[in-house]
Amino acid sequence: MKTDHPERGRLQAAPTLAAGASAIERRRFLTTLTGAGTVLASSRSFAWEPGEPLPVPDSMRVLGKPVAADAYGNPSPHESNVIRRQSPGLTRTNESSIAFAPLQSLFGIITPNGLHFERDHVGRADVDPYTHQLAIHGLVAKPKRYTLDALLRMPSVSRIHFIECGANTGMEWGNAAVPTVQFTHGMLSCAEYTGALLSTLLDDVGVDHKRARFILAEGADGAALTRTIPIEMALDDVMVVYGQNGEMLRPENGYPLRLLVPGVQGVSSVKWLRRIEVGDQPWHTREETLHYSDLMPDGKSRQFTWIQEAKSVITSPSGAMTLFDKGGYYEITGLAWSGRGRIKRVDVSTDGGRQWQTAQLQTPVLSKALTRFRFDWVWDGEPALLQSRCIDETGYVQPSIRALREVRGTRSIYHNNAIQTWQVLASGEVRNVQV
Amino acid sequence: MKTDHPERGRLQAAPTLAAGASAIERRRFLTTLTGAGTVLASSRSFAWEPGEPLPVPDSMRVLGKPVAADAYGNPSPHESNVIRRQSPGLTRTNESSIAFAPLQSLFGIITPNGLHFERDHVGRADVDPYTHQLAIHGLVAKPKRYTLDALLRMPSVSRIHFIECGANTGMEWGNAAVPTVQFTHGMLSCAEYTGALLSTLLDDVGVDHKRARFILAEGADGAALTRTIPIEMALDDVMVVYGQNGEMLRPENGYPLRLLVPGVQGVSSVKWLRRIEVGDQPWHTREETLHYSDLMPDGKSRQFTWIQEAKSVITSPSGAMTLFDKGGYYEITGLAWSGRGRIKRVDVSTDGGRQWQTAQLQTPVLSKALTRFRFDWVWDGEPALLQSRCIDETGYVQPSIRALREVRGTRSIYHNNAIQTWQVLASGEVRNVQV
Repeated sequence: MKTDHPERGRLQAAPTLAAGASAIERRRFLTTLTGAGTVLASSRSFAWEPGEPLPVPDSMRVLGKPVAADAYGNPSPHESNVIRRQSPGLTRTNESSIAFAPLQSLFGIITPNGLHFERDHVGRADVDPYTHQLAIHGLVAKPKRYTLDALLRMPSVSRIHFIECGANTGMEWGNAAVPTVQFTHGMLSCAEYTGALLSTLLDDVGVDHKRARFILAEGADGAALTRTIPIEMALDDVMVVYGQNGEMLRPENGYPLRLLVPGVQGVSSVKWLRRIEVGDQPWHTREETLHYSDLMPDGKSRQFTWIQEAKSVITSPSGAMTLFDKGGYYEITGLAWSGRGRIKRVDVSTDGGRQWQTAQLQTPVLSKALTRFRFDWVWDGEPALLQSRCIDETGYVQPSIRALREVRGTRSIYHNNAIQTWQVLASGEVRNVQV
Repeated sequence: MKTDHPERGRLQAAPTLAAGASAIERRRFLTTLTGAGTVLASSRSFAWEPGEPLPVPDSMRVLGKPVAADAYGNPSPHESNVIRRQSPGLTRTNESSIAFAPLQSLFGIITPNGLHFERDHVGRADVDPYTHQLAIHGLVAKPKRYTLDALLRMPSVSRIHFIECGANTGMEWGNAAVPTVQFTHGMLSCAEYTGALLSTLLDDVGVDHKRARFILAEGADGAALTRTIPIEMALDDVMVVYGQNGEMLRPENGYPLRLLVPGVQGVSSVKWLRRIEVGDQPWHTREETLHYSDLMPDGKSRQFTWIQEAKSVITSPSGAMTLFDKGGYYEITGLAWSGRGRIKRVDVSTDGGRQWQTAQLQTPVLSKALTRFRFDWVWDGEPALLQSRCIDETGYVQPSIRALREVRGTRSIYHNNAIQTWQVLASGEVRNVQV
């Protein structure tokens, strides 16, 4: 195991993901029917004989809770294992850290706000929405400050997009280091975002179209996190966002205001957005020099690798799950996405990439959004190597880890979009491997 | 005010909706800039003079909270007014009641799970996912019982659909009875649902295609709520759902299993689903005879009016908001939906329906899902009557309340899909009216 990245060596201590799945999700793979009325101990469904009385559950014998029980709702207590988690040993503090989304337990493409991954640089900022302002200045005719109220009053758009941290899957450059899809790919979420197009604001301040080539976005956190963004993106689909999945942003996702740079590594979607400066060259800030650059085999670093290239991962079955049903049907399902547009196709292999078959894509397939794919599979009880490989609308094909390493070496952290392999053992255990 | 419906007369006691909007949403309409750095007391944005120092907020001076602060996240405390509410006096108990979604504060089309409306008949059932089973019997070759585990293992689909209670806007048959869009239209939500198609299950039990004409769905609540559903729907797009917006259903929305009958009044999407019977005629249960039938002017009741016809409503500006900015820009925005498919067009009027202009529709426009529309408006400070009118892909046009009453009279509760009017007074106050 490579340990040149100081945070990487400790990851073997991560817990197995039986603890990372929901009560139900664990049943899905670890099942033996222990419930009342069980007839066949290893069956998935069972015949119901005519005349056999249907058990009447307690829930039908009592008055339920009032509808006012919770004016803002919460998940069932049975789902208390479906949570964001830190990867043990990955970061030195809990403030400059990451809480990974439990992809193994999620359905569809929408990440519920309570489970959206969190990446903070100097902790989760507590911003007062009544005093918060966004300043826009630099190469503009009329520098302005906007209250949140002003921004909420502007013409708005709502769009479904993914956000993926550039460091997602960053522990896997050297070897298969972490056990579960929560930790291999969980710096990834997708939501319906609402806000103003940044182009609307840049129009409002009179951006100098002749000279403007970049913008700088700054957050109101202790890191004063700053990122350079090309003006072409800023004038295209970049949004100044206040809404996420129908409600206001959560504090951990930038309440009350964040930038959203669709398709670009998450750090550029600056949270707690307070300032945008328009300039004619990149700023070369800390988070685009010391961090978020790609160390290449020749010792040089690639900088400003904004785009999250096409990538996919099987979320179920995935690492630390166990398949108990030899000869049984399993739906292989996962997520695909591309920072360059729509996913065109996802292929699935159950033999480590020798043969590929096309998976079903859930519609709608949206640009720069997660796409859910599904593939019918009957597990014959033999060892298997499960992989997914996506192709986006530009024709780009997700690479193998070997092909990626040939170009990038093993010393990178960011932009690992390699094909993920899950090994199914004859015992049914599923492990993270690299082939 | 009509009071023939015993629950209707008390609704005037409902609070004004200033209390129903978020802290931010209230600022949106009630704004005076009271924050630090305020320059112009009634401005929406203001010039930032070169050299003027940008205030440094407290959030930049301190270490933020750790990422592990909440493994399952919650909204900002500043948003504590964005909650589901009961309409005062509407129901005699809090168990057979409704919690309305705060449409005035929502963005886009996805309703966050914590704010999805709730309608219970005998309270919110507490169902054990480990023992819960779904039985399917009747005109089938192989009656079966399915554990939740079995259902989670089956081929799945994820689709974005609205659910609207048949009684939504039911207080408005006689006059404009309730003050806010939360209470006029808040029995409405939209989510990405995941589950198995019911057709997959009916195949599995060997449904008798020659004789089957209806199914009965039964819930595991104290009401043993039962509804008849035509077999054509059951074999088309009806789903047996466990996932909602990426996670397991919430308890108030049927955890761990519900039916979803897209486009049909919400009561048919039976929560806590425990039994499906296949038969050759309707069952005429309590909830399709005593309730959920439409009392017509001739004293007869129309039964089995399943479909939610095309409908729209402006959610902002809406009742109990106040516009303070004469001559200022306002984005008129709202929701449109149809139980028969896609929304084709939404028109907006600001003069009570004399002139109509076409609104922008947010893409993707999905079948039997909410569609967000937007319309640019500069309020001239004069009284106005705001309306929206939608047309679905079948060509059906949302009717005025007068046209609807001509056919339906005023004694109905269900299936009121009339055009909603919000009156803007010269003072800026917005009121629910009928014209």
